[in-house]
Amino acid sequence: MKHTISVLVENNAGVLSRVSGLFARRGYNIHSLAVGVTEDENISRITIVAEGDDYILEQIEKQLNKLIDVIKVRSLSADELLARELVLAKINCTPAQRGEVIAIAEITKAKISDVCSGAMTLELSGNINTINTFVELIKPFGIKEMARTGTLAMQKGETATVEG
Amino acid sequence: MKHTISVLVENNAGVLSRVSGLFARRGYNIHSLAVGVTEDENISRITIVAEGDDYILEQIEKQLNKLIDVIKVRSLSADELLARELVLAKINCTPAQRGEVIAIAEITKAKISDVCSGAMTLELSGNINTINTFVELIKPFGIKEMARTGTLAMQKGETATVEG
Repeated sequence: MKHTISVLVENNAGVLSRVSGLFARRGYNIHSLAVGVTEDENISRITIVAEGDDYILEQIEKQLNKLIDVIKVRSLSADELLARELVLAKINCTPAQRGEVIAIAEITKAKISDVCSGAMTLELSGNINTINTFVELIKPFGIKEMARTGTLAMQKGETATVEG
Repeated sequence: MKHTISVLVENNAGVLSRVSGLFARRGYNIHSLAVGVTEDENISRITIVAEGDDYILEQIEKQLNKLIDVIKVRSLSADELLARELVLAKINCTPAQRGEVIAIAEITKAKISDVCSGAMTLELSGNINTINTFVELIKPFGIKEMARTGTLAMQKGETATVEG
């Protein structure tokens, strides 16, 4: 089963290595990870999507809470989850194909980030299904390169997911 | 100085911990990190923005290349860089303020991801300046919670940044 975990940490050197090390030592595979600063520059939020056993996850959460840099840990269930990710994709695109690519961008609400004589780079944020559909649509052109951020997750509604 | 490094890795358990550990051991502070799958599900791309000395960075790159899971490492210079990140922000928003928030979303091309009686969650992808301007615009409403992915980076133009 896939789990989404949101961790608020103090922005110290090595914190990422300590957090991801906890998962690694228990053979828990991290599917995606996103880390960036929050509204406070000294605090970062790490969102981890990982796959594995419920029991082991509980152990990892307990150990995360023991790390000095960790402020708060929260495991998010699927129904309360607002999950988004970002994809950047560079595809083959001759001048004659540009109209077709622009149409795909308009339908999917992707942004055109870069264009040159033989390629175009598109940028799209959305939930995992939106991103997957988009990738299917651009595949026929030939994907030269693709990068995805990990999932960014938040609790739906009014409450903050993890309060500092 | 800030450096952006793109690393293609095999999607094995613990790879993230090994990569981030290399930075930590040399006291090199990771500013942001994004990891997600590429067009090939077995291969992930890690984009790291880190701050520090050029010489140490060169050493880290050499050591990254020695890791078994690492397929390719590429340091990207600012002028060839197409960098994007994603932000999710939950702000206070009374029904009377919704019009104002929708106007900000339209101007900045942010998407409205969630709404409830007292809050709204917005989603925006863009370069760091776009994101910072957006954050300034929504601050007056009161940010309940904010999450940012790390920077996702690619080389501009036709060539792939790191070929597998």
